[in-house]
Amino acid sequence: MATNPNTRPTNDRDVISELTTGRLSVYLRCLTYLESVQQQTISSHELAQRFHLNSAQIRKDLACFGEFGTRGVGYNVSELRQHLTRTLGIDRVRNVVIVGAGNLGMALADYRGFNDSGFHLVALLDVDADKIGRESRSGIPVLPYEELGNLVRKRGVEIGIIAVSADSAQQVYDNLADTGVQAILNFAPVQIRLKPDVKLKSVDLRINLESLSFYLKNVEDES
Amino acid sequence: MATNPNTRPTNDRDVISELTTGRLSVYLRCLTYLESVQQQTISSHELAQRFHLNSAQIRKDLACFGEFGTRGVGYNVSELRQHLTRTLGIDRVRNVVIVGAGNLGMALADYRGFNDSGFHLVALLDVDADKIGRESRSGIPVLPYEELGNLVRKRGVEIGIIAVSADSAQQVYDNLADTGVQAILNFAPVQIRLKPDVKLKSVDLRINLESLSFYLKNVEDES
Repeated sequence: MATNPNTRPTNDRDVISELTTGRLSVYLRCLTYLESVQQQTISSHELAQRFHLNSAQIRKDLACFGEFGTRGVGYNVSELRQHLTRTLGIDRVRNVVIVGAGNLGMALADYRGFNDSGFHLVALLDVDADKIGRESRSGIPVLPYEELGNLVRKRGVEIGIIAVSADSAQQVYDNLADTGVQAILNFAPVQIRLKPDVKLKSVDLRINLESLSFYLKNVEDES
Repeated sequence: MATNPNTRPTNDRDVISELTTGRLSVYLRCLTYLESVQQQTISSHELAQRFHLNSAQIRKDLACFGEFGTRGVGYNVSELRQHLTRTLGIDRVRNVVIVGAGNLGMALADYRGFNDSGFHLVALLDVDADKIGRESRSGIPVLPYEELGNLVRKRGVEIGIIAVSADSAQQVYDNLADTGVQAILNFAPVQIRLKPDVKLKSVDLRINLESLSFYLKNVEDES
């Protein structure tokens, strides 16, 4: 398996922000749920208990982003949710394209959360004439890859998703960067040569299987 | 969006092991690469530099798993790789099934690393008669879902992957657990009611988009 250093942060500041934003996303999901069941306040302790989180970590994470808790009362659910939404930059909608309309691209096009609450999926792009003109189950159209530049400029696309095979990923990364896309999510298992000022986040799904294997091994060792 | 507490660890020990195993997987990829280019030793400092990691963190993580480094020489690449492979429990092959042969299931069936180096993908399972009998691009067959119990018992399946829609995920989780699968990877965006002694790891892909949004927002704020 090829090494993929792009899944790793490039410096300590990145480590902090990547880990923290992951947790902020988790808190946001909890708060969105609490708001949906009309809960108005919650303490860091209750938040930790209910969602199996670490209450000291919650206080630390949220302290970085301003003080919202009132001692003895807790956080205002709605205010904190709005604050996290702004912090994560999803209080406005960002346009997204997916490059590659194979199984993975199609699955991502219909994946919950990829086309709502801060993200608008403009199109899938592909070079395969058989795929162009189709649409995903949720109605995202497949357009010719050659329209990438136009689409990015006209629709103000900010995020590109690479869902092509490993051997095409570098080319797609370069093209996305050249058209002005500043943030790229890569699913291809390959090391990308990076350009300055273009943020790349690579997803390595195998790590999840290895984590389950580690669990199984520990169960075996204990028995 | 539904809250998904299953993406979160259930206690502090889980936090440690989940974060650590993620990093061990990253180290393993680096070492596999170094071995492929015939490098025999590496110091924690060089490992950190080359792969943009944190050298203090490397020493701390690897100290937990026994002492392999020699001061001034560094780690033996091959020995450390073998040790990490054993630690992650991928020094032997574990059988895996994917439930759901839609776009996501098919993409995962052909995803690099899901069917090698410690994992053997036995089959995709689906209830849809149109899908049964087909196979993924890499040749993984789609079998009837009703064969789940037989397959798990006969083939000793240890890991199940849930790639069905949100409304079927709980049923699939329950069925996998009932047939004796002890480790489950869930891609459905839904909160699963857990059974004892069955490890669930849920993947929430939207978190990656939110992390990119956070990056873009900070670029905007700085300019």
